[in-house]
Amino acid sequence: MHIVIPFCPRQPKTRLSQVMSIEERQQFACAMLQDVIDTVQSTGTDPEVLSTESLGIDCSVTVDDGQLSNVINHLIETTNDDIAVVMADLPLLTSSSLSQLLKMKGDIVIAPGRGGGTNGIVIRHNEFRVDYHGNSYQDHLTYAEAIDIDVSEIDSFAFATDIDEPEDLGEVLLHSQGKATEWLRDAGFSLETTASRVTLHRD
Amino acid sequence: MHIVIPFCPRQPKTRLSQVMSIEERQQFACAMLQDVIDTVQSTGTDPEVLSTESLGIDCSVTVDDGQLSNVINHLIETTNDDIAVVMADLPLLTSSSLSQLLKMKGDIVIAPGRGGGTNGIVIRHNEFRVDYHGNSYQDHLTYAEAIDIDVSEIDSFAFATDIDEPEDLGEVLLHSQGKATEWLRDAGFSLETTASRVTLHRD
Repeated sequence: MHIVIPFCPRQPKTRLSQVMSIEERQQFACAMLQDVIDTVQSTGTDPEVLSTESLGIDCSVTVDDGQLSNVINHLIETTNDDIAVVMADLPLLTSSSLSQLLKMKGDIVIAPGRGGGTNGIVIRHNEFRVDYHGNSYQDHLTYAEAIDIDVSEIDSFAFATDIDEPEDLGEVLLHSQGKATEWLRDAGFSLETTASRVTLHRD
Repeated sequence: MHIVIPFCPRQPKTRLSQVMSIEERQQFACAMLQDVIDTVQSTGTDPEVLSTESLGIDCSVTVDDGQLSNVINHLIETTNDDIAVVMADLPLLTSSSLSQLLKMKGDIVIAPGRGGGTNGIVIRHNEFRVDYHGNSYQDHLTYAEAIDIDVSEIDSFAFATDIDEPEDLGEVLLHSQGKATEWLRDAGFSLETTASRVTLHRD
């Protein structure tokens, strides 16, 4: 299994700009990426980071500034190995949930993201094509049906929780113990509990 | 296993009041409850709905207008059977995810909700006590640690996705095929796809 983690270091996580500066968003995005790399490595596989720019990290990095769907589809066409694409903003992801995705049967196995995204996908059929624009979850199901291949789906909160909005940061503090959580704590973020729910606080 | 579904039919889902009238919120809350009842029944068990008021539904209903945590804790003290508490606003919940929760080992098994809630819990130890106020997920972990009992946790997007806010409705339309989805479609709700994500639309 060839595991790919797409990453775009320039202007990352724009929806967090209310609570973080551009430098902070870059640092936080890198911390999340490192958490995902660590999780992949804990399953015994070295991932390939597919970045739009070169990165100074201790991991195999391929630089390609093409459109993500095109780059992945080219990989599907030219690689004989099975491919898994795992998003870089999933700091809740654990070794056990990733392992479960990788071992599930199906020509494709989808881990849906909140809001209609595809946060993880295993591709074992070289006629399949990804399209990460818009409602990619339903588009991927529709395409798989059109070419009549088997689809499985994992039910995982960790996979579903990509970190895009300020309110997502609470999930990192609640459920993850990695570098992204450490970064948030160092930057002064913490949880505040009201009578009905948890909210985010920054010193 | 005794499966309890708490339900409060008066003024339900106040955070949906921007997009639904009070009568609509009551209908929608009942549709979600029916989906959860159907899911529990599909695992071969009849649940007990614990309602603050009497309900005209085809299911065992116990009326108790006490504070939820107190009512559940009284049940833990007085029932010899293992108990599972499953929230009524989980229309994404499937038979397979519920079955997985029920079969997981542990004195307690927790299904965290988004935002620090506890959307499902199995209780097999009669010294455990629930507290549904605030950050119940962390409070439950802390209490279990204090009385030194085993805790397991399920990683489930379906369990994590309680439907509270307008943006949660998109998840129902994307991932559920039950009565809540049917109600939303009949009420004119649909998905709109932009370049980057899925948003909610109402006719």
